[in-house]
Amino acid sequence: MNKNSSNTMALAPNTSNKRETVCIFGTGDFGRALGQKMIQSGYSVVYGSRSTQMSNLIPKDAEVLGHAEAAQKAAIIIIAIQRQHYNFLTPLAEVLRGKVLVDISNNLKLNQYPESNAEYLAQLLPGSKVVKAFNTVSAWALQSGTLDASRQVFVCGDDVEAKQMVMNIVRALGLTPLDKGSLLAAQEIENYPLQLFPMWKFPIFLSLGLTAFFFLYCLALDVIYTYIYENNNFSFFIAITIPNRVCPVMALILLALVYLPGIFAAIIQLYRGTKYRRFPDWLDKWMLCRKQLGLIALAFASLHAVFTLVTPLRAFVSWRTSKGIISQALNNKTEPLNNTNAWLSDSYLALGILGYFLFVLLGITSLPSVSNNVNWREFRFVNLGYLALIFCTAHTLVYGGKWFLSPSAYKWYLPNIYILSLIIPCAVLVVKFVLIFPCVDKPLTKIRQGWERKPKYSE
Amino acid sequence: MNKNSSNTMALAPNTSNKRETVCIFGTGDFGRALGQKMIQSGYSVVYGSRSTQMSNLIPKDAEVLGHAEAAQKAAIIIIAIQRQHYNFLTPLAEVLRGKVLVDISNNLKLNQYPESNAEYLAQLLPGSKVVKAFNTVSAWALQSGTLDASRQVFVCGDDVEAKQMVMNIVRALGLTPLDKGSLLAAQEIENYPLQLFPMWKFPIFLSLGLTAFFFLYCLALDVIYTYIYENNNFSFFIAITIPNRVCPVMALILLALVYLPGIFAAIIQLYRGTKYRRFPDWLDKWMLCRKQLGLIALAFASLHAVFTLVTPLRAFVSWRTSKGIISQALNNKTEPLNNTNAWLSDSYLALGILGYFLFVLLGITSLPSVSNNVNWREFRFVNLGYLALIFCTAHTLVYGGKWFLSPSAYKWYLPNIYILSLIIPCAVLVVKFVLIFPCVDKPLTKIRQGWERKPKYSE
Amino acid sequence: MNKNSSNTMALAPNTSNKRETVCIFGTGDFGRALGQKMIQSGYSVVYGSRSTQMSNLIPKDAEVLGHAEAAQKAAIIIIAIQRQHYNFLTPLAEVLRGKVLVDISNNLKLNQYPESNAEYLAQLLPGSKVVKAFNTVSAWALQSGTLDASRQVFVCGDDVEAKQMVMNIVRALGLTPLDKGSLLAAQEIENYPLQLFPMWKFPIFLSLGLTAFFFLYCLALDVIYTYIYENNNFSFFIAITIPNRVCPVMALILLALVYLPGIFAAIIQLYRGTKYRRFPDWLDKWMLCRKQLGLIALAFASLHAVFTLVTPLRAFVSWRTSKGIISQALNNKTEPLNNTNAWLSDSYLALGILGYFLFVLLGITSLPSVSNNVNWREFRFVNLGYLALIFCTAHTLVYGGKWFLSPSAYKWYLPNIYILSLIIPCAVLVVKFVLIFPCVDKPLTKIRQGWERKPKYSE
Repeated sequence: MNKNSSNTMALAPNTSNKRETVCIFGTGDFGRALGQKMIQSGYSVVYGSRSTQMSNLIPKDAEVLGHAEAAQKAAIIIIAIQRQHYNFLTPLAEVLRGKVLVDISNNLKLNQYPESNAEYLAQLLPGSKVVKAFNTVSAWALQSGTLDASRQVFVCGDDVEAKQMVMNIVRALGLTPLDKGSLLAAQEIENYPLQLFPMWKFPIFLSLGLTAFFFLYCLALDVIYTYIYENNNFSFFIAITIPNRVCPVMALILLALVYLPGIFAAIIQLYRGTKYRRFPDWLDKWMLCRKQLGLIALAFASLHAVFTLVTPLRAFVSWRTSKGIISQALNNKTEPLNNTNAWLSDSYLALGILGYFLFVLLGITSLPSVSNNVNWREFRFVNLGYLALIFCTAHTLVYGGKWFLSPSAYKWYLPNIYILSLIIPCAVLVVKFVLIFPCVDKPLTKIRQGWERKPKYSE
Repeated sequence: MNKNSSNTMALAPNTSNKRETVCIFGTGDFGRALGQKMIQSGYSVVYGSRSTQMSNLIPKDAEVLGHAEAAQKAAIIIIAIQRQHYNFLTPLAEVLRGKVLVDISNNLKLNQYPESNAEYLAQLLPGSKVVKAFNTVSAWALQSGTLDASRQVFVCGDDVEAKQMVMNIVRALGLTPLDKGSLLAAQEIENYPLQLFPMWKFPIFLSLGLTAFFFLYCLALDVIYTYIYENNNFSFFIAITIPNRVCPVMALILLALVYLPGIFAAIIQLYRGTKYRRFPDWLDKWMLCRKQLGLIALAFASLHAVFTLVTPLRAFVSWRTSKGIISQALNNKTEPLNNTNAWLSDSYLALGILGYFLFVLLGITSLPSVSNNVNWREFRFVNLGYLALIFCTAHTLVYGGKWFLSPSAYKWYLPNIYILSLIIPCAVLVVKFVLIFPCVDKPLTKIRQGWERKPKYSE
Repeated sequence: MNKNSSNTMALAPNTSNKRETVCIFGTGDFGRALGQKMIQSGYSVVYGSRSTQMSNLIPKDAEVLGHAEAAQKAAIIIIAIQRQHYNFLTPLAEVLRGKVLVDISNNLKLNQYPESNAEYLAQLLPGSKVVKAFNTVSAWALQSGTLDASRQVFVCGDDVEAKQMVMNIVRALGLTPLDKGSLLAAQEIENYPLQLFPMWKFPIFLSLGLTAFFFLYCLALDVIYTYIYENNNFSFFIAITIPNRVCPVMALILLALVYLPGIFAAIIQLYRGTKYRRFPDWLDKWMLCRKQLGLIALAFASLHAVFTLVTPLRAFVSWRTSKGIISQALNNKTEPLNNTNAWLSDSYLALGILGYFLFVLLGITSLPSVSNNVNWREFRFVNLGYLALIFCTAHTLVYGGKWFLSPSAYKWYLPNIYILSLIIPCAVLVVKFVLIFPCVDKPLTKIRQGWERKPKYSE
């Protein structure tokens, strides 16, 4: 591997404050922003450009030369031009031999080209050392100095020294390099900025849809029905009462939906007698977004908790309370303590608190920094989800139980929202209970762990 | 260092989608799961096996050959066999020369063998480059695609290039490699999956034991005593009232237990006049699980907070409130505002809130990602624990103070739970207060920082 | 690159438990603490010292020799002496050639010397391989085994193999090495322990000052005024009522101050017509501490939430409630439900809950481990701050609205605290609303993204 002299020179660390010279091909947005930032950090910057005229756009203190002359001045060349113009670099192959080329490009679509831009560049210029970097940094954030978002810069490349040089520049700009390995990782790095919450889309749309449905359902039963048949204007229920009915229902359903795919998977594996066949596509996708479903469920549960705790502060509630007390006082009687009521009220509160507590624990263990510190055996141990589901279902059952049989719960012959919310959780718990039985659990464990399977596999 | 040709070939990055060939020795659980995953990720997989017959278990598209032929086909060989069979590899030493061997094995017990499996493998085959990896990944999680737990794969090895190759495979499988350095780290990596919350065991058992004791204590005094002597059935206290007495007591005691070992250490260091002798074993262990004790205390404090906030929603409490109001109304008199009561109630609430607030801050700084961003000087600065302990003790004193002297607090001649809970915190605070005095603090600081000590050290 | 034999030997991994020999120059605090720790971890330690007498301070099992003899025994020499004495090392240059020198020094002030200590050492001894490490670890924490703070050890150096050797030692001591790249990073690493919450200073002082001001303001209006003119002793308001007025005001103002600099920046960029000129210094600094301002605002908002939820538990509140109910009962009348009141109370509670919920989401995304997992597009998407500001301002407006016009709100002709708190948030929201208009937004976007600017730039 022959290194030309300028390269070797750049590899030697400069202990003086003056840093090496970096060349930037392209004077577009990102090229200019990066150049200015590098000048501020003590680098000398040379732009390589077709026309060397447009000097008022270029940061001061930067030189603008033709591509070949600019490239000769530096060991590192940042390619701030678009992929479709890469082929103009092929005539420069000799000048760029042994140099470090930094590919900063992004695509407009996921997997737009068969190979990543950086790999394409490496194929065009096999004598150069291509490093992928900076593509997740926005020009605007770089320039304005307001890097709110992640300061991480993903770097990958096949040449370790070239990568080190680029990572040093990243550090000098006040950013944090993250080595993603060889140039094979470029595809992943290039796809990264194009993804918007890839795993969150389905859970968010699902919960938005369900929330809207349950909100309208409650609105019809609690506000409109009451207004029509009882002539009471409870329109202010929209602010707290109805949200506080929708939130727990959503939390419970979403929590059950976290465990439902596992149930399906177990049934499918039991039926097929093997775990070596892929699950249907919808089940695969569902299983991959369970964590997101769980976190949204936690958000709903938290809102439910706050909405509930706020109850005694509501004007409506204090009015209702005083009305009750005054009517007792005017009738000159004091109701004795209803022990059953005390039990019911205390136990559904306690169940809810415990369920929520376990839920929050689950949420904390899902924080990346915590879950990275938890090994696999520990993870299964703290996987308290089912216990949380049991507590939350019991909480709803104890609270909503009285509505099941009372006819007033069936306004317009529609079931109360509590009854709807219990269908999926109860189904999950019942099937899970069946799956725990030894006669079902043993073959399942064998299929999963012992890798046993029914004779047929040849299909 | 001689590299054979296949190795060099594999080191060259393949920019095409087709990835290099990997060989797996052993067709057990993990070997098959890993092979299937690798085939899905674009690798060619060759299994090395004694018998080349059992093809229905092996993933499709994989080849099965004898060990020597399989090894020749690839630069990386994954050793998916158990340590006790490693010696059968010695005859293959010549074939494996210069190859990268990936040791994925685990042991059944901590420190089962004098050296780690990977180091043993490296001793057996000194001509090969051994890399430790994948041992923390479960075969089941790999296979089912449901990697709930940490996606981190610890990698260590003496050869940097070999490690890079393995880390690239890890990345290609969608996992995150974490370089743990040379093969010396293999022992630690192999012990990792065998530990189940190593630091949590003692704190969890201690708090379970104490919780059970205090629960029964409260049950006896608040439910059974009341039932026997006052003929009131307050059994529903089990749900909220008693937990809400036990939780704050546990939180306070555990928080004090976080700071107690530091007190002991200071006294021991003062007594010995040196810090160069080891603390007794129990103190060492206690000091190592202080963070865990603190987090459990935080959990109890959080439960206490929620149980308290839920108070106005309880049927029993609203019954008690209305009874009080109705009796006032029936007697035609309004009690004036008791200013002392207002002060006491507001100040214990405020003290509790501030103590809890500091407590939560401490909990947040203990999150790995936060504490990694805090340097040592900052850490001592935000070490607000003593302030939290002072606030929480004061909160309990103001709240429980009235019970100290009233004889009704001594049912069955037993002290109230509040009095029990205050013993350790008060002792810690008093001793800490003494330790702050200059005449005590100065020698202690000298011992700790100035490394001074009393003449004797020669024993 | 010539390696002497002792070095090569040390590079070969020792698979036996006995680790290599390490030399430590200097027998001060840190040198002794590190030596003892290394001996405990299985290393042989040789001290290099001018006098070889002071053996009672030195950890047992360590050898003490002259500098040259000690250095010859090991491939790694830890330089535990102060920078001002580094020049005594120059005569040893020949002995130290090819050795790994670990610079562990710290300075007393930020940027005390033009170059970092490690770079200075590398200049003095160009034949040695200098690695910076261990400077963020405290001798006391090392020695006492109670490494409460971060276990991260920042390592940097120009020689990759030397760095690997040092990182292996770091790992063997139970610490976590973090590779910060070449020796250029030494300056940053040396400055690190000297910074105490660099970004937190201004936000903390600002909020302390504002809190004190608003507390006294409330004290004057709510306690002193009431005492003088209405002869009511509401001194207990100090505990909860006044904090619960100051906290929401502080939260709202600080949240608005998070977004105010962005508004200023937009106006300045619009006025200048370019984004290539630096913002004034105060604006730069302000923008850099926005996250900290936001987190403090979140702390105030959390305190406000807890103080509010605790309301029904206060003796004063339950006295006020019963007084109201009793007076109704004695007058034999039941007030009907005031629908407007119910709407107002429910909607300000709901607005507050939603605002706080968004606020907490923002706080969670600011956790380092979460924000590292969020890419730039996602970050802009979850940047829900303005929505939180709108909700919180609306919450205050609905709650405090009734005070605007009532004359009783102007005690001593001073406006109520709610009115003061709304000035900045409303101003921010109004200007932001103007900035959203296409006629303003388009040129701003062009300036920021399209890099267009007004003709003049030559000044």
